[in-house]
Parts: sequence; C-alpha cells; structure tokens
Amino acid sequence: MSTDEQIKKDMYFMQRAIDEAKAAYREGEIPIGAVVVCRDRIIARAHNLTETLNDVTAHAEMQAITIAESELGGKYLQDCTLYVTVEPCIMCAGAIGWAQLQRIVYGCPDIKRGYHEYAPKAFHPKANVTSGVMEEECKALMQRFFQERR
Amino acid sequence: MSTDEQIKKDMYFMQRAIDEAKAAYREGEIPIGAVVVCRDRIIARAHNLTETLNDVTAHAEMQAITIAESELGGKYLQDCTLYVTVEPCIMCAGAIGWAQLQRIVYGCPDIKRGYHEYAPKAFHPKANVTSGVMEEECKALMQRFFQERR
Repeated sequence: MSTDEQIKKDMYFMQRAIDEAKAAYREGEIPIGAVVVCRDRIIARAHNLTETLNDVTAHAEMQAITIAESELGGKYLQDCTLYVTVEPCIMCAGAIGWAQLQRIVYGCPDIKRGYHEYAPKAFHPKANVTSGVMEEECKALMQRFFQERR
Repeated sequence: MSTDEQIKKDMYFMQRAIDEAKAAYREGEIPIGAVVVCRDRIIARAHNLTETLNDVTAHAEMQAITIAESELGGKYLQDCTLYVTVEPCIMCAGAIGWAQLQRIVYGCPDIKRGYHEYAPKAFHPKANVTSGVMEEECKALMQRFFQERR
C-alpha cells in the first residue's frame, strides 16, 4: 500500500472515531471516540461513557477493546489497529499493551493525561504509533466541550 | 487508630482479597483478588476474569472499581481503600488514579508488570500506598499457579 493510500485509510477510520466522539459530545460526555479495525473492517466502535455509567473505566478505548475481543473471540488484537481521537491515558495505554495491539493511531495529544508522559512503555514493544491524524478536528471538539463548561 | 489496629485491619481485608484470588485460582485464572473498603465496610469484591471473559481489561482491580462506583453511585472513591493481592499493572494503576482512591494496599510486588516501574505517577498525588501485607501468601498463590502451567 502506498503512503497516500495509508493516509486516506487512516483519515477514513479516524472520521469514524470522530463520529463516535460527536455522539459522546451530544450525550454530555468528554468527546472522545475510538474504533478498532481488523483487516480493513471496523469490528468495534465506542465512545466515552464515564458520566453515563458513573464509571472511570468506561473510556472509549477500554470499551472498544472489550468489544473487539468479544467480536474476535480472543484476548489479543495483534492484527488490529486502534483509532482514537485523543492520545490514550495511562489506563487505556495499559489495556492497549495487554491486548497487544500492533498499531495505534490517534488524533490530538493529551499533554495533561497522555501516556507519553506517564507510561511511555505501556504499549507492546512492536507496536507502531501514528499521531496527528485529523488532529485539528479532534482537538476542536475537546476545546468546544471544555469551553462550554467553564 | 493505633498502628497495631491498622495492621490487624489491613490483614483482615487482605485475607478477603486472598479469598477472591483463590476463587480465581479455582477457575483457572491468574490468582489475583481485590476488595474495596469504605468506612470499614467491603463495598466491592472481585477477582481476575480475563480468561473467562476473554477480556484483557477484566483484572480484579478494574472490576472492583466499577462495582464500588456502582455501589456508591459516584465516579470517585476518595474515601475508599483498595486491597489487592498483587501490585497493580499500568492499566489498573491508571484506573486507580482516575477513581482518586486515597489508599492502596497490596500484597506482593509484580516486578515484570507492576506500575512502580512503568507508571510510577499513576495514582492520585495524595494517595497513600502500603505494600507487603500478607506478601508470602499472595506470592505463593501466584507461584503455584505458574508452576502448574510450566
């Protein structure tokens, strides 16, 4: 696959993650969305539900991993890519590591809570990370959410 | 409360976490158990269910946090103590941080996967950590499990 094709594909799947983030936004949740893709097919979609479920573990990535594992009938997601609108936190990065996800694509960084700062070795050693895909759109959703709540 | 009373109490609750770990062991799961205690009352008990549920996120601590939040009807567990038989991993440490647990008591260290090495700042800055409570019993269960599988 050419780099151009890969970029197009990444934008396509990130847009699906953004759709999930928008659903979270409409529900009054911090707007973060995720999808898990296996051989070009979306096998899990989820968005943050921490307020609705009163549960700090209900991040988009955590739910997407659980759904994907259920879909594939196995605990490991080596052949899968996780697309998520915001840089994963420590908890989600740990889950991504356990699931052995081989590729992680995220939109905008999370300087305060992101795994880069707090758990840089959380992912599987062979995992490949792409950041900044549709970054502005992912960031704008977050900024709008927090500005409205100030 | 005197130090002696605190030690007695910690051993009592750790024994309940070990009971959970033993339940995991009987189910063929890596034997790790956890309880959440709020004002001297156990509000959540859980054990590792990653194999049974085919879900890497089903660690004892994750389930215990979700159950405790549901029991209290809120996302934060500031007044609670988490007792867990083994040092939490990156994922669980991240969840413990999000839940703002103020005290964490664990049995034996996990040198390979523990948060100390990989996410040392995961907990709430004010959280208090006690390690080594009934360490030998917690460790023996883990060793027995892995020896049987070699």
